[in-house]
Amino acid sequence: MKIFKIALAQFSPHIGNIEANAQKMIEQANQAKKQNADLIVFPELSLIGYPAEDLLIRPSLAKRTQKGFEQLSQVKDIVMVFGFVNQTEDGERYNAAVVMKDGQVLGIYNKQNLPHYGIFDEKRYFNEGHQHLVFEYLGHKFGVLICEDVWSLNTVHQLSQLNVDTILVLNASPYEVGKPQHRIATMRKLAKQLNINLAYINQVGGQDDLIFDGTSFVINQDGEVALQAPSFQEELYYTEYLAEQKTFKVVESTPALDTMAEIYQGLVLATRDYVQRSGFPGVILGLSGGIDSALTLAIAVDAIGADKVQAVMMPYTYTAPMSVEDAAAQAKSMGVTFGIAEIHPIVNSFMQTLYPFFGNSPADTTEENLQARTRGTLLMGLSNKFGNLVLATGNKSEISVGYCTLYGDMVGGYSVLKDVYKTIVFELAKYRNSISETPVIPERVITRPPSAELRPDQKDQDSLPPYDILDAILYAYIEEDMSQDDIITKGFEKEVVEKIIRLVDQNEYKRRQGAIGPRISSRAFSRERRYPIVNGWTPGV
Amino acid sequence: MKIFKIALAQFSPHIGNIEANAQKMIEQANQAKKQNADLIVFPELSLIGYPAEDLLIRPSLAKRTQKGFEQLSQVKDIVMVFGFVNQTEDGERYNAAVVMKDGQVLGIYNKQNLPHYGIFDEKRYFNEGHQHLVFEYLGHKFGVLICEDVWSLNTVHQLSQLNVDTILVLNASPYEVGKPQHRIATMRKLAKQLNINLAYINQVGGQDDLIFDGTSFVINQDGEVALQAPSFQEELYYTEYLAEQKTFKVVESTPALDTMAEIYQGLVLATRDYVQRSGFPGVILGLSGGIDSALTLAIAVDAIGADKVQAVMMPYTYTAPMSVEDAAAQAKSMGVTFGIAEIHPIVNSFMQTLYPFFGNSPADTTEENLQARTRGTLLMGLSNKFGNLVLATGNKSEISVGYCTLYGDMVGGYSVLKDVYKTIVFELAKYRNSISETPVIPERVITRPPSAELRPDQKDQDSLPPYDILDAILYAYIEEDMSQDDIITKGFEKEVVEKIIRLVDQNEYKRRQGAIGPRISSRAFSRERRYPIVNGWTPGV
Repeated sequence: MKIFKIALAQFSPHIGNIEANAQKMIEQANQAKKQNADLIVFPELSLIGYPAEDLLIRPSLAKRTQKGFEQLSQVKDIVMVFGFVNQTEDGERYNAAVVMKDGQVLGIYNKQNLPHYGIFDEKRYFNEGHQHLVFEYLGHKFGVLICEDVWSLNTVHQLSQLNVDTILVLNASPYEVGKPQHRIATMRKLAKQLNINLAYINQVGGQDDLIFDGTSFVINQDGEVALQAPSFQEELYYTEYLAEQKTFKVVESTPALDTMAEIYQGLVLATRDYVQRSGFPGVILGLSGGIDSALTLAIAVDAIGADKVQAVMMPYTYTAPMSVEDAAAQAKSMGVTFGIAEIHPIVNSFMQTLYPFFGNSPADTTEENLQARTRGTLLMGLSNKFGNLVLATGNKSEISVGYCTLYGDMVGGYSVLKDVYKTIVFELAKYRNSISETPVIPERVITRPPSAELRPDQKDQDSLPPYDILDAILYAYIEEDMSQDDIITKGFEKEVVEKIIRLVDQNEYKRRQGAIGPRISSRAFSRERRYPIVNGWTPGV
Repeated sequence: MKIFKIALAQFSPHIGNIEANAQKMIEQANQAKKQNADLIVFPELSLIGYPAEDLLIRPSLAKRTQKGFEQLSQVKDIVMVFGFVNQTEDGERYNAAVVMKDGQVLGIYNKQNLPHYGIFDEKRYFNEGHQHLVFEYLGHKFGVLICEDVWSLNTVHQLSQLNVDTILVLNASPYEVGKPQHRIATMRKLAKQLNINLAYINQVGGQDDLIFDGTSFVINQDGEVALQAPSFQEELYYTEYLAEQKTFKVVESTPALDTMAEIYQGLVLATRDYVQRSGFPGVILGLSGGIDSALTLAIAVDAIGADKVQAVMMPYTYTAPMSVEDAAAQAKSMGVTFGIAEIHPIVNSFMQTLYPFFGNSPADTTEENLQARTRGTLLMGLSNKFGNLVLATGNKSEISVGYCTLYGDMVGGYSVLKDVYKTIVFELAKYRNSISETPVIPERVITRPPSAELRPDQKDQDSLPPYDILDAILYAYIEEDMSQDDIITKGFEKEVVEKIIRLVDQNEYKRRQGAIGPRISSRAFSRERRYPIVNGWTPGV
């Protein structure tokens, strides 16, 4: 027999839109009531969404929060636990959770551990709380923690000392590869160690460069997973507490995704949320016959549907016929709008105008960049005219070393593969082909040697080491913060490592002007790798 | 008779280059010795420079700092006080100051107040110190504080209780309009209140988007200014402590700069440091005959010299003849390389290529953007071929409301007027003309109505309110965080305010891809206004 039932609201907020979020929370609470839930728990800062950044310091936030509370007070006969910004009269601001019933505030908890590393800036906005919150309901003692709190053994230990049966953890924990599994594994150990039940509710949805995967779960005090919600889906999940066993009922969990499925679904969700929440009618991208744009197209179609996706092939002298064929074939098989725009006349007119300036200077990357910038300008023209968002198609390997053209192939409002190394791009393309009856990305696009096709017979490998080596060096330098010397010691060629690191360092200015794109790694080029553009840090040790 | 002499090292570090900074500090210490100084004080974190951002979390920082200390230990017979990153064996990291003599460490102070608002992120990198440092030298008791510490009355009060005669304050306090005067006024009150002498040493130089103005000073305990160093200059300044009066000798101070002189010199310094420290041989910019590019040109010439500056006029159908005349006249009078590149053929070829896509869609901003992007691509081509940095010329008013073309007039590595409202652009142009015998900016450029010249007879004022009104609304919304309702209540037209705020909010994505540029306001679009691109914050309250 169940004693009570909790709804875990794996909620996708619209950042900053308190009124709309409150409205959706009301609907979800009413839905949970219909399922006879006694309690509904929302993620961290669910009322305003995470991260709201400097919206948190707008003067009217308190007023808006107050209105959100008034909206939510109409919910009756179910206990709601949700996240909000708690501003006290003396001007202190807390990342807080409230327990509310029938419009009455039963308790407020202020987050005690504020992360301020990686992507996090919470000390910019919040004060630290110093008190635990425990509330009793239906004969059960609940404690409340918020995200980072549960990673502080000290904090969790203190709370567990207060005879709490179950800790409700409100989270906005961003996705990175392997993170969903890591959270559950860590929390299983913790539950067992402290002999306490944990209900972990995570935000879901894309927000600019961040993906929130959801993957909420419930763990019994013996460490068993009672419930594991799917990743990347907004939904209510339910868990029942059983009288006899004094544990949460164990239900069959959604199996964890394979790595490529996990990344792919994350990218799809991020792209969908960015496009839809920015109000674009659709997207447009340059399809080159290469693997990056092919994968980006597949993600775009899976995110918003083929009818909202436009692909343009923009060949030039160095474009191989098979590139045009493959682009056309993929566009056709995916059912998207497809057009071809020759760029010769435009590039020629650029060259003629520049000739008096260039004189007899030998051709170099300048001429290659002209091709890329002509394509970028065409895409932006089509975007301006019809309103579709341009998707940039560059990958993390290229963007790391600056093997991309600013205002050229870098144009766009969302850079879908920005945090995806080229070796993973290949894996994702194969994964995507593996899940449909006929391959959506032509086989030849995956198997041919990658080329930017900006000069005759060009191959990426003419300028860069093979991608498996390049990516290994980049990973060591970027994700693992290893020094040049240490990477060389690992066995990579000295000259190669020196060149790659020099390129990464020199191209900070380019990355700074690049479009945002979804983060899937533990060190994306965005808010979590903050390097000065002008800097004299020498490689080496 | 003097008892001792202090050298205030208004130092301009090369961020991250510890070896080079240490070398320069040695040279400055030796120079100070020749002037019989007993003590030399450098700014906050002088060894690595401020802000070093995520270089501070590179694993080899401790090793590099150690080497810097070894270099500096060769300085003899003068006490050095300088800033460094203090990493303890248990992995804590402090923003610290060290007192060193003949290679011996006499004391270390860890900053107690870590700013983490506005442009500051110190809690991302540092732990808070909890102890004061007082050292006695030549019969005088010195206390040491670092930047934010001196703005905490609590901290300063505690230190003053330790019978300190003079507080040495090591700073990296970024410039904003009026800040130099504000610092001195506040510190005069403080010195008087606590009956204590203050020697305030500030970093100087441009670092990416930040300008450090220097403007170091010494204040006697009666509140009198004993020394005020000039702004925006790297130099050693000396102050003598007199036996009889028991105060620092009052010397004639550099008069404070007028506001426009202050801003102008700041922009010149920032531009020079960005160009030179990035290793560019020179700069290139598009000269339109309008006031923004005219002012940018003047700043560039003053920063790095006319021989390193290239200007290009890129006329189209809508360019008035007087624009070409004025651009040519200014280029000639300033002595820069000047060229003209007609963009008709290129724009036409874009239009022809796009025609099959556009069909009979009426002309709109798409066609205007093609002109701007053609110009941007030409500038980038010239930059790629000859290595000069492209300077973007947009102002803060335009960038706020998105009255600028992404990948068009926004191209560039440094955006000189990014934080300068249009009304200030006019003032700066007049100021610059006022300080040379013959005007460097043609009078007509200043007096004619501003126009982007992207369609026939276009004036900025067709799409935007007059600049004095626009700037007042923008200032209220951006700098003062006022709500839409409150701005309307101030007396501005409702429709105008709503439109402006909508434009500011909608154009976050454009600004995010813009070049960095020097900050002169209290709320620049850079690291200190962090808004989500996707957000549902509604205007109004």
